Amino acid sequence: MNSKFIVIEGLEGAGKTSAQNTVLATLRAHGVQDVVFTREPGGTPLAERLRDLIKQGADDERITDKAELLMLYAARVQLVDNVIKPALARGSWVIGDRHDLSSQAYQGGGRGMDQPLMQSLRDTVLGTFRPDLTLYLDIPPEQGLARARQRGALDRIEQESLDFFARTRARYQALAATDATIVTIDASQPLNRVSADIEAALVQWLGQQQAPDAAPLSVQER
Amino acid sequence: MNSKFIVIEGLEGAGKTSAQNTVLATLRAHGVQDVVFTREPGGTPLAERLRDLIKQGADDERITDKAELLMLYAARVQLVDNVIKPALARGSWVIGDRHDLSSQAYQGGGRGMDQPLMQSLRDTVLGTFRPDLTLYLDIPPEQGLARARQRGALDRIEQESLDFFARTRARYQALAATDATIVTIDASQPLNRVSADIEAALVQWLGQQQAPDAAPLSVQER
Repeated sequence: MNSKFIVIEGLEGAGKTSAQNTVLATLRAHGVQDVVFTREPGGTPLAERLRDLIKQGADDERITDKAELLMLYAARVQLVDNVIKPALARGSWVIGDRHDLSSQAYQGGGRGMDQPLMQSLRDTVLGTFRPDLTLYLDIPPEQGLARARQRGALDRIEQESLDFFARTRARYQALAATDATIVTIDASQPLNRVSADIEAALVQWLGQQQAPDAAPLSVQER
Repeated sequence: MNSKFIVIEGLEGAGKTSAQNTVLATLRAHGVQDVVFTREPGGTPLAERLRDLIKQGADDERITDKAELLMLYAARVQLVDNVIKPALARGSWVIGDRHDLSSQAYQGGGRGMDQPLMQSLRDTVLGTFRPDLTLYLDIPPEQGLARARQRGALDRIEQESLDFFARTRARYQALAATDATIVTIDASQPLNRVSADIEAALVQWLGQQQAPDAAPLSVQER
């Protein structure tokens, strides 16, 4: 099987770190040994510097929505061109903690940025590059934020209002409903149930990748 | 007269700093007292951080052309929204050391980036916002770089090849030829002649701004 780019998405506190471990264990059990982890924004020296700016800002200056989006895409194109594409090309699988869907949900949904602008920027920067599979961990914002708060201080984006995260979640759900490469996982369940659902979804998807006759869209039908 | 946004453009070593002083002195002589200086990339806390990343990079990681362009526009939209537009709105004039024309020339001409991509990004980020007047200091790259070298160590962009700067200059010249708001100054002359030309061009332009019947394009006809 060719190497694949698998992305884990969801609100703060949805359980993305645990999901990474489940995905890694499942891939290992299926014979995939060479795995690279990425996180966004970040994952390269320049992208990590941009991550710091996006998360913390600079001297309390208001970051405009457009500047935030442009920095996110600057970090993303560095990661895609310098890390993800080379990894896939040499046969490594890539597990991404967030990717473009986060911008669609947070900036497009949460911040309400103009849809044609978002579309134009994505096409301009990424062309047709897309993840092979996205596992979207769906969780009510109240529940996710309660978990995130237990981890410690909230960053600039985590301090947004509940309404912001409700809009972000609604956009995640809407996009997941229309994109066959996105599988929704109910992340409000107990952790062992979430892990079992992730493993089951990934195993089914891997089976479809190996069977050339399988319809690639049927992962949505389970 | 309403406040105006006047930009000084040109290759490294073209004499932009001297030109700022000439523009300031000329504006003062015409009764303009409230002047704000900006530089690009930079001019806000966040934009200055981005400037450092653009100029110095991070840990020798290769900066992709797209990431460079996106960081330039992130810095620009911060400066425009947080500094330039508020300054103009409260009646200050703004003298800019570089603005969007630099991206058109360096990234579009020098790096040869895709023109529709450049256009789309500019429209997306800046909308219809443009300088009222741009003074383009035209100088052969060899002459400008010789001056820039005397100032000390060259940054990441100043270390580009002569071909890069020749392409950048050609794009500057082509854009100046088709945009009536750009006045070309021969910056290869002795400094006192350059200053005299800048002052003359600015005085003529100011006169046209005050005379409501004057055709705004005639500044190109001198």
